Amino acid sequence: MASAFALTVAYDGTRYAGWQIQPNGLAVQQVLSDAVSKVIGHSVQVQGSGRTDSGVHATGQVCSFATDVWSHPADRLVQAINRHLPRDVVVLESRGVVAGFDPIRNAIGKRYRYTIRMSRVPDPIHHPYHWWITRHLDIAAMREGAARLIGTHDFKAFEAQGSTRKTSVRTVRALEIAEREHLRGWELTLEIEANGFLYNMVRNITGALVAIGSGRFSTRWIEGLLESRERDPEGKTAPARGLCLIRVDYPPQLFLPSEGAS
Amino acid sequence: MASAFALTVAYDGTRYAGWQIQPNGLAVQQVLSDAVSKVIGHSVQVQGSGRTDSGVHATGQVCSFATDVWSHPADRLVQAINRHLPRDVVVLESRGVVAGFDPIRNAIGKRYRYTIRMSRVPDPIHHPYHWWITRHLDIAAMREGAARLIGTHDFKAFEAQGSTRKTSVRTVRALEIAEREHLRGWELTLEIEANGFLYNMVRNITGALVAIGSGRFSTRWIEGLLESRERDPEGKTAPARGLCLIRVDYPPQLFLPSEGAS
Repeated sequence: MASAFALTVAYDGTRYAGWQIQPNGLAVQQVLSDAVSKVIGHSVQVQGSGRTDSGVHATGQVCSFATDVWSHPADRLVQAINRHLPRDVVVLESRGVVAGFDPIRNAIGKRYRYTIRMSRVPDPIHHPYHWWITRHLDIAAMREGAARLIGTHDFKAFEAQGSTRKTSVRTVRALEIAEREHLRGWELTLEIEANGFLYNMVRNITGALVAIGSGRFSTRWIEGLLESRERDPEGKTAPARGLCLIRVDYPPQLFLPSEGAS
Repeated sequence: MASAFALTVAYDGTRYAGWQIQPNGLAVQQVLSDAVSKVIGHSVQVQGSGRTDSGVHATGQVCSFATDVWSHPADRLVQAINRHLPRDVVVLESRGVVAGFDPIRNAIGKRYRYTIRMSRVPDPIHHPYHWWITRHLDIAAMREGAARLIGTHDFKAFEAQGSTRKTSVRTVRALEIAEREHLRGWELTLEIEANGFLYNMVRNITGALVAIGSGRFSTRWIEGLLESRERDPEGKTAPARGLCLIRVDYPPQLFLPSEGAS
């Protein structure tokens, strides 16, 4: 009988063309599918909880696959698959899931983190993992703008143009901005959790909050965007490299009980 | 009249053959000397506070040079030099110093940080910046061992063999071990401050403390090493990539008062 497994994976998106398999460029989905196929001895394609763009990172992407040839505990897949992965893609956890588990449709929430460096000098060590801004940002104003986005809204104005999703209404459950001193400057992290995200939604929200933080627009502008349901041509999309998918949530009953120590 | 400047620099050591200019491989000193030479219009070689090995990082290396052609405030060198640097080397600060400033001899202290990841799975994002250990380390035992090393001792047993320094007596002022949860595991940081360091001293101390933390040796072994003044062939040298030079201290009177806003 076929068993289904969900893998929690982390990756450095810098050298990938994104999550999803595509004709040009290496995708994380490809690299993972190849490694899983080697371990189970037949070809599978893992299915992710959603795409991440080229340069976007993950510490909690979830993907799944089914096979009828793995009879060991789910947990043993972790080391077995990692042996076949390059060092910028890692399986963190493997759990058995119910038959028919769908990593996209079954997801009930996701959390992303966006990292901004605020300093007059760049950080040579963490360059691929943040957006560097030399201007001083007003964090209080950004938090005010962020507060306007929490709740259930039509986020059409924060969706990449040309998207064709049925509805652009989403519920943002949390939008937290933290700051800490780091290397002659500040590191800001925006963590945003929602029941689902539109294409480029986190990067467009980040771009809008940075515009508010730099004084280009007021909090009222954010409210106007939500009302207008139209992408403002003045609205910037934050660069991919600052973005990281940190968690995907599923109803706990979709996971099978662990088989115990292997 | 010639003016002397001290630069505080940060770099990702991954792709460099180390700090010091050498016949084979690109050195950080070379890249910085080239950039400074371009800005001031004549050839100089910057002098560092000490070498760092290939793969070792820095967020607070200090180097200096003298020139008689820079008449602007010292601070303006920061952006001017950074314009000519690759993105993995950055000048954080530039200060005027007294004539004859010697970044090696005038240093009164240095601080290094060593980062260890303790987890059964690797971290795909920060791979070049830590030593990954799958075994569980006993932090309390490591702290006990660290306490034995604080103070003035002959650190000969922690010096790379073949070194020819006159004395191997150094004063370790602090050796702090911190831990925090990170990506299905723990990140340990060892910060060590001393009036000076022998070649490979931080990496050898780290290797010894990890040996104690993994239960291979007792705290008594560390005491025996200090007494023996001989490198134990069982003692491991921690890998370069986990090491970062975070501060070099000088007597404040060697720095000239800043010229004010530029």
